Amino acid sequence: MKKFVNDPKLYVPEMLKGIALANPDTLRYVPEYNLIMRVDAPNPDKVSVIQGSGSGHEPAHVMIVGRGMLDAACPGDVFSAPPMDYVLETSKLLASPKGVLHIVNNYTGDRMAFEMGQEMAEAEGINIRTLIVDDDVAVKDSTYTVGRRGVAGNFFVIKSVGGASEQGADLDELLRIGNKVNSVTRTMGMALTSCTPPAKGSPLFELGDDEMEMGVGIHGEPGRRREKLASANAIVDELLEAVVTDLPYKASDSVALMINGLGGTPISELYLLYGYAHEQLARRGINVRRNYVGNYCTSLDMAGCSITLTRLDDEITNLLAAPAEIAIRTF
Amino acid sequence: MKKFVNDPKLYVPEMLKGIALANPDTLRYVPEYNLIMRVDAPNPDKVSVIQGSGSGHEPAHVMIVGRGMLDAACPGDVFSAPPMDYVLETSKLLASPKGVLHIVNNYTGDRMAFEMGQEMAEAEGINIRTLIVDDDVAVKDSTYTVGRRGVAGNFFVIKSVGGASEQGADLDELLRIGNKVNSVTRTMGMALTSCTPPAKGSPLFELGDDEMEMGVGIHGEPGRRREKLASANAIVDELLEAVVTDLPYKASDSVALMINGLGGTPISELYLLYGYAHEQLARRGINVRRNYVGNYCTSLDMAGCSITLTRLDDEITNLLAAPAEIAIRTF
Repeated sequence: MKKFVNDPKLYVPEMLKGIALANPDTLRYVPEYNLIMRVDAPNPDKVSVIQGSGSGHEPAHVMIVGRGMLDAACPGDVFSAPPMDYVLETSKLLASPKGVLHIVNNYTGDRMAFEMGQEMAEAEGINIRTLIVDDDVAVKDSTYTVGRRGVAGNFFVIKSVGGASEQGADLDELLRIGNKVNSVTRTMGMALTSCTPPAKGSPLFELGDDEMEMGVGIHGEPGRRREKLASANAIVDELLEAVVTDLPYKASDSVALMINGLGGTPISELYLLYGYAHEQLARRGINVRRNYVGNYCTSLDMAGCSITLTRLDDEITNLLAAPAEIAIRTF
Repeated sequence: MKKFVNDPKLYVPEMLKGIALANPDTLRYVPEYNLIMRVDAPNPDKVSVIQGSGSGHEPAHVMIVGRGMLDAACPGDVFSAPPMDYVLETSKLLASPKGVLHIVNNYTGDRMAFEMGQEMAEAEGINIRTLIVDDDVAVKDSTYTVGRRGVAGNFFVIKSVGGASEQGADLDELLRIGNKVNSVTRTMGMALTSCTPPAKGSPLFELGDDEMEMGVGIHGEPGRRREKLASANAIVDELLEAVVTDLPYKASDSVALMINGLGGTPISELYLLYGYAHEQLARRGINVRRNYVGNYCTSLDMAGCSITLTRLDDEITNLLAAPAEIAIRTF
């Protein structure tokens, strides 16, 4: 296993400690619950926005805690839902008089942990609502999912809801906005390589030297099919066709286009993909008004990418442009 | 070769096209010279700051063009210096009455291209000075270098010089600042894996499943030695010891600490490294006042990292905190 790791059992807490040490003025780390939260949360004038999921998808979600994004994230171990009591304790620590919003990617384990955590928190008098993200068009049901999976498109949901929460929107309004963004967001991904969870120490699945997995999930779940390795442009063509025809996105639509890396793909390749995807959307008459190129929702060290489209209207455009300050900042 | 690529010969121009399409309001792409420049450059009230190098180190340098950073970057092909005429034409297009500053990492090929480009541009009446970056403590001379190599520490030089150039500093002042930052900046890197240049189609060098290369260069040049794979903490210990003792950095020094990924390492692992490095510096009495964790200067898809320290004084601290807007932005 070629990774920076000490004890695989400490992989997540050692990462979280690093995030906290790098952001002492803005973030608080609560080791008992794998919790990364804003030091100024809960804010009584603002709904607290929380996401939990398995680890291994960084920067999602522990590295996108900050003003205009998440108030807290409580991850589980690598590719494992957070335990129910992490959800409960996080909700209690983040309880605001305006309420708490859980954003949950649609996986059975995550939904179960958040539903039970929500019930227990409600029994303690906390007002909680839950928003489900399911943007992945690749497959209807999957290894860990009934219905579609939630993948990189959840960035647009978080950014929109986070922005609106800073402006004072109440729980109902945040649910409306989040559901609306989710309803106009579609993603499909593909893998060039497998990925290696630290505790396993070997690749999660096997992929031949001349193969790729189209429609792969962010935990290495099978996609639509395994194919012979193709050119960058052919890969973009297949992903875009699946995404565009699903909603469908139509000529004269304005969209945000995300080229998301899965962790092991250099940013140079992502920009190469972006150029062709932008051109192909233009050929369909679809206008790319905002773009996002980089690692947003990853699968450890997997080489691969996903393409996400969000259809823009004035409301979503303004929320995506609202200020955000995240834990990881580079310049 | 598991990469997103069409024709390997078009790898760099297709990436540059993507950068330009993603930044139509701020960047201009001049395909004849692989040139990415600010649309508002040259600015007659500002020295134009330019860096060129081989490609394959993204985001360095084509993706850090923008206000407070570079005015332009003219890369060569993957791991190849830009041709002399790219340097010349870039200098001509960026010529400002206040002059042009070339920032060059210390590699023989890059120095030759920039020296000749400078001479030819000076013959056309352009006022140019050159700043050499050589922050890598790993080896004295290397495959492509007389003297130390320039690696990820050049980010701190670019950020400081770019910031000062926005404030109106003249060429002499920028040289003073750049040389000062370079003189207090030290880096060492290491590789867990090799990398695959698109045109070669296979790994640049071989590294056993249980081996790592300590002190590797950003073009896969040999480092100090090949060792058995070690724990994350042991790797940080060895890199920090080499970096700290070189300047040396001393107790009560304030520093900026960069954990740089080499392209194929997920950000989760970089934050794991950060946490331990921060603690070990604290044990030495060295205060980490600013931190930088992510991919700054990469080697294509190489898994690995480098650690950079810059000793801070008030001037450098203020310049590193000055506003910057780069081509790649994610939120």
